[in-house]
Amino acid sequence: MEVKPMNTPTIFYQDGLVVLDQSKLPLIKEYLRLNDVQSVYEAILSLKVRGAPVIGITAAFGLYIGIKDFPGEDREMLLKQAYQVGDYLKSARPTAVNLAWAVDRMLNKLKESLPLSVQEIKDTLLAEAQKMIDEDNAVCLAIGQYGKKLIKPNSGILTHCNAGGLGTARFGTALAPMYLAHREGIPFKVFVDETRPVLQGARLTAWELKQAGVPFTLICDNMAAMVMAKGWVQAVIVGTDRVAGNGDVANKIGTYGLAVLAHAHNIPFYVAAPRTSIDYKIASGEEIPIEERDPKEITMVSGKDIAPRDIEVYNPAFDVTPHQYITAFITETGLVFPPFRQGLEEIRFKPGPSEKTDLDL
Amino acid sequence: MEVKPMNTPTIFYQDGLVVLDQSKLPLIKEYLRLNDVQSVYEAILSLKVRGAPVIGITAAFGLYIGIKDFPGEDREMLLKQAYQVGDYLKSARPTAVNLAWAVDRMLNKLKESLPLSVQEIKDTLLAEAQKMIDEDNAVCLAIGQYGKKLIKPNSGILTHCNAGGLGTARFGTALAPMYLAHREGIPFKVFVDETRPVLQGARLTAWELKQAGVPFTLICDNMAAMVMAKGWVQAVIVGTDRVAGNGDVANKIGTYGLAVLAHAHNIPFYVAAPRTSIDYKIASGEEIPIEERDPKEITMVSGKDIAPRDIEVYNPAFDVTPHQYITAFITETGLVFPPFRQGLEEIRFKPGPSEKTDLDL
Repeated sequence: MEVKPMNTPTIFYQDGLVVLDQSKLPLIKEYLRLNDVQSVYEAILSLKVRGAPVIGITAAFGLYIGIKDFPGEDREMLLKQAYQVGDYLKSARPTAVNLAWAVDRMLNKLKESLPLSVQEIKDTLLAEAQKMIDEDNAVCLAIGQYGKKLIKPNSGILTHCNAGGLGTARFGTALAPMYLAHREGIPFKVFVDETRPVLQGARLTAWELKQAGVPFTLICDNMAAMVMAKGWVQAVIVGTDRVAGNGDVANKIGTYGLAVLAHAHNIPFYVAAPRTSIDYKIASGEEIPIEERDPKEITMVSGKDIAPRDIEVYNPAFDVTPHQYITAFITETGLVFPPFRQGLEEIRFKPGPSEKTDLDL
Repeated sequence: MEVKPMNTPTIFYQDGLVVLDQSKLPLIKEYLRLNDVQSVYEAILSLKVRGAPVIGITAAFGLYIGIKDFPGEDREMLLKQAYQVGDYLKSARPTAVNLAWAVDRMLNKLKESLPLSVQEIKDTLLAEAQKMIDEDNAVCLAIGQYGKKLIKPNSGILTHCNAGGLGTARFGTALAPMYLAHREGIPFKVFVDETRPVLQGARLTAWELKQAGVPFTLICDNMAAMVMAKGWVQAVIVGTDRVAGNGDVANKIGTYGLAVLAHAHNIPFYVAAPRTSIDYKIASGEEIPIEERDPKEITMVSGKDIAPRDIEVYNPAFDVTPHQYITAFITETGLVFPPFRQGLEEIRFKPGPSEKTDLDL
């Protein structure tokens, strides 16, 4: 059993914000420096940075970058500028709630810090964004610890899109249980949906699992049903971009179909969800805005046409899985079972995991 | 309502066998000349010619090509050579029953014709292959006539892969009802699954429907569930590569998942099946061999890597849909409803449609 050191960071701040360019993986592993707000916005919009948790952290640093060169001591002007930056960053992608959550957290921190000097405020905001990385690591590892118990020896786990280290600061949400189970020597295998149209499964999850030495098989999305029917899948674990108060889940397009198929094959369906992805303000998935993206994501691959030009295309980036199809949420406070409205409310204000961990990473 | 002339032929014989190269569509429309048996085999293997009915017809011409230059009058040697050619052609692809059916039909014709001169035998076989084109056209149009009644005004029809004119001699099986409904001015819309990994939906069905002026929307396979949940789909119509005696259906990978999803959304699921695709010799879908193809079909698109190299990939070309998920078969003798073993047996020896048609094509 090969056990490699756990993932390298997806994002860090060192003389500026540095992120792994996910749009170039798996062929090229390249870090990008994001020096201004527009670059941060563009990196999120173009999926150079993707995955709900890391989008949130990137936007938090983006907010800091947006005010770090603010001149003078007019704190009201500073606050106004920060709100403008925040609105701009939030507009990059509508579905993942982490983006808005992280920006609001930074703005609240700024408001709290208004009695301080402008330089102190800037330092406070940078520290707050840094803290989000540490918290994300602790949350992902806690999700991993709770989730790994769902991975039985010699089982098959199917996942969709990338809710891995690349979608977070380092350890992933849906993949964290797999990394920890693998470290413990539990034999299991992952089925990786390639995840059209942007191929986050083929490009990112396959790359991550290969780096980590976790055994996996890549399949096309439309093969999941057959793999289930063959009895090769004992659990589905996916991430989420937003969970509604009733447990409805927005996640990468294709998740809903997988959930229906898992249900039809009596396979448990788990959603790894840090609390930052839970939107308590909305009652059901119907209220989650679903981003539609450029038809070219479907009609072109690697810059080449794979369909006739000038045709009608439907390209929703996400779908909503009704809570009835979800067996449990894997959160940093433990598993949450139905009824979800109650279960999710109960964990809302629970203490989170310590930022310290005894894992040798 | 735009009504264009119906499809141009996919295959014809004119100083040799000419087929449309489906591997180059939609970017390039190019006909190939297949002058020897190995070229015929290779064209089928590499999906230049694909679609169960047209594979059968191509193989029939392939058998003729394999004996047309046979010298002398030793008819036993001719028969032996024909069997060798037939075995070779049948080995190109295992799942579609039409391939073996067409080869066997040609071999039987040859055996019947053994009293004739070698030249007369050759002429007889060429005529037999030509006849298959005429029969295929008549069968597809009959499927179209019976199937078009299933297309309600203002409905959405979802299809997978390409069971269109390109997969037959000219008119298609699953698409024939859509062409005839469109000619009659019935307003409806097709949802075209792109159909990974080889993208027959995006490349071929989209191209065909665009040529014919039939309104359609291209989606990724994993979007079908969401499109169904939105209430946009009133029927699914697909083709088939082989139907077992009990009504189990082998068809392009992804069909089984679609059938489960259609069932979950109370959407009727129809399989357009010429009788040449029904394999009465096998009792259930478990006996249908499922072809697994090159992993590169998944890991590379347009010659470029879209996944890490040296990874495990599962690439079944087909799946089996249990008969319980099928609402009805659309055959050239009419619709067949459950119980299918009985229904399919009843149409087995029914007279087929006339090769004459009153449609202005």
